[in-house]
Amino acid sequence: MAKSSPLAPKRIPTLPEIAGLRVAGAACGLKKKKVPDLFLAELDPSATIAGVFTRSKCFSAPVAWCRQALKGGRARAIVVNSGNANAFTGLAGDRTVEHTVKRAARLFDCREKEVFIASTGVIGQPVAANYIASKLAGLKKRLAPNGWKGAASAIMTTDTFVKMATRQTQIDGVPITINGFAKGAGMIAPDMATMLGFIFTDAAIPAPILQKLLSRATDRSFNSITVDSDTSTSDTVLLCATGKGGKHRKVTSISRRLWAFREALEDLCRDLAQQIVRDGEGASKFITISVSGAASARAARRIGLSIANSPLVKTAIAGEDANWGRIVMAVGKAGEKAERDRLAISMGGVQITRNGQLVKGYDEAPVAKHLKGQEVDIAVDIGVGRGKATVWTCDLTHGYIDINADYRS
Amino acid sequence: MAKSSPLAPKRIPTLPEIAGLRVAGAACGLKKKKVPDLFLAELDPSATIAGVFTRSKCFSAPVAWCRQALKGGRARAIVVNSGNANAFTGLAGDRTVEHTVKRAARLFDCREKEVFIASTGVIGQPVAANYIASKLAGLKKRLAPNGWKGAASAIMTTDTFVKMATRQTQIDGVPITINGFAKGAGMIAPDMATMLGFIFTDAAIPAPILQKLLSRATDRSFNSITVDSDTSTSDTVLLCATGKGGKHRKVTSISRRLWAFREALEDLCRDLAQQIVRDGEGASKFITISVSGAASARAARRIGLSIANSPLVKTAIAGEDANWGRIVMAVGKAGEKAERDRLAISMGGVQITRNGQLVKGYDEAPVAKHLKGQEVDIAVDIGVGRGKATVWTCDLTHGYIDINADYRS
Repeated sequence: MAKSSPLAPKRIPTLPEIAGLRVAGAACGLKKKKVPDLFLAELDPSATIAGVFTRSKCFSAPVAWCRQALKGGRARAIVVNSGNANAFTGLAGDRTVEHTVKRAARLFDCREKEVFIASTGVIGQPVAANYIASKLAGLKKRLAPNGWKGAASAIMTTDTFVKMATRQTQIDGVPITINGFAKGAGMIAPDMATMLGFIFTDAAIPAPILQKLLSRATDRSFNSITVDSDTSTSDTVLLCATGKGGKHRKVTSISRRLWAFREALEDLCRDLAQQIVRDGEGASKFITISVSGAASARAARRIGLSIANSPLVKTAIAGEDANWGRIVMAVGKAGEKAERDRLAISMGGVQITRNGQLVKGYDEAPVAKHLKGQEVDIAVDIGVGRGKATVWTCDLTHGYIDINADYRS
Repeated sequence: MAKSSPLAPKRIPTLPEIAGLRVAGAACGLKKKKVPDLFLAELDPSATIAGVFTRSKCFSAPVAWCRQALKGGRARAIVVNSGNANAFTGLAGDRTVEHTVKRAARLFDCREKEVFIASTGVIGQPVAANYIASKLAGLKKRLAPNGWKGAASAIMTTDTFVKMATRQTQIDGVPITINGFAKGAGMIAPDMATMLGFIFTDAAIPAPILQKLLSRATDRSFNSITVDSDTSTSDTVLLCATGKGGKHRKVTSISRRLWAFREALEDLCRDLAQQIVRDGEGASKFITISVSGAASARAARRIGLSIANSPLVKTAIAGEDANWGRIVMAVGKAGEKAERDRLAISMGGVQITRNGQLVKGYDEAPVAKHLKGQEVDIAVDIGVGRGKATVWTCDLTHGYIDINADYRS
């Protein structure tokens, strides 16, 4: 594993147990080095599940399976391997999925559609159909309510630190726990960035409501980050509710009772999403881009991502260059409503442009100082509406090129 | 000027004269170094004009002017400066345009809407309203039918070579000349890439027909290239027809008579567009991406640009890594119809995948050899329709980061 990112959080949180859930991670030989590469979760038979997946048209075999299985809304087991993405592996990939699912269903005495799987790693190299299946019985013996760190480690590829988060909240005054872990952008030849996230709560929430909560939280977290604009074939986030925590009244809709939970879930997702950005390849700066005054929230997010994905903006920030002209460019190319003479741009809280022009007497010194730090804030007001969004990204450095171009030479 | 790009054409063509046109370029102090920075063209009063412009919502003041003036369809003068983009300069920018246009109209005894202007260079720093206007009378004295190299040099920013092209064609058997020059992706703080192109012919073609021809040619050339996915606020391509060459019958539609001309124009635009890619910042490889079997030509171009803009694909090629998994990823994220199990990918003419899987017995050696060269060919068949497109790009190297992140340090 490479040296930990300079933007890594100071400490890794300790995750509490979740009633109705046991997890484990172990090294099963899918990665060349003997490091954890298989994660298994066992859920209480009452557990519900929600999921969001890559929008790629070339999605992996595991994604195809999960989309199908999710219709049942129930989860008993989750099997996730790193070291091989099982993407673009044709019918061989489907067979590996089939064998893994069948074995897990037998092992946990459940229906096949209660088994969810995800894979990340090398693309285009099928895993022997039985390989993962053959490891499950052994891994089952290691399941434990506090196996979080092993589980979170097992889904990493070239992540430089383990990404975990936990939140305490309540429903009807009953304490509720939410735990999650994720992996971010890492490459191993011939691999690509994959984002995976697994979130668990002891609340009792029906699958359709869980899905709404997850979709909303994802839009404001995982779908609001970018490292390099490239979308994986395997992106998967699953949220499971065991219903085995303290007893609260039955949840039948997203009413005021659920607001604290919804907020805690969003907060946890944002935490994990930001950790992914902090581990972006070659990242030396963590960049927060706040867009306001757009025609809609959707427009604001698209403008934010246009700025966050611009190689010229990202290299400027890597160079600690207050190059606001490139931000104007990125707003302009987003395709959303904007007016040159209404645009206002700030960095580090210092207003740089207003009404489409440089602010009178603009002093670059405090902005230059802000850009020397590890945390960079950019605020853009479009001036045409009330839509708001925040997105997070990292800078584009020589480190990115090193990781992605030079690793074979 | 930096060392010439390793991908620069072996020789710069000599452009013939175009009847009814005189051009000049000179150093007028807009750039710090005393190098050409102002280009002037005088056209015969009968000349027609067509134009295509950036789709940026934050377009520059000169682009706003040209869009308006183009409605007249006539051109007597073109004024283009480098060294300052006159973009995001608010009302001051509009005044500079106004003064320049008025002075040129007086100088050439024409209507204001027969004057076209473009600017490229630093963003957000207004030029004194009269500055460019005050240089026009002097530059007018240097106009010459063969002033091409001076003109083409005057629009360069950090381009490392002059980009010119010429074609001979015919209408009704009468010989016709088309000349053009362009500038590409160059940066000077706080600047951004700007694409400018100016094309002239001695044919007699009404403005509406000229516009159709230019739009079509642009889609298949300038709109089919990308260096870094960032779109300038100032992109401008103008096409003028003086009507002063050999006499051909009147042109009233794009019939078979015009096919040779249309083909020659497209060929010239493609030549200039490819020269821009060959001068892409940090470029070490020229990449041709041919997409076939897409749902439509538009879908094919979007898929091609998704591949061409992917930092992961571009860095893989910089690293001479036959990382076809990243091409699958880029096809998937394009948002156009695609099916995992129909996708076929080739590099350097060697089939790598077919029916969504690695070809049996695939030998990477010839592909690795192809990737060591300066010209890389990628062919992707989507397998869902008959749409085709070709796009051109360059690789993403440490040179790009050097130019765009490090130049201030």
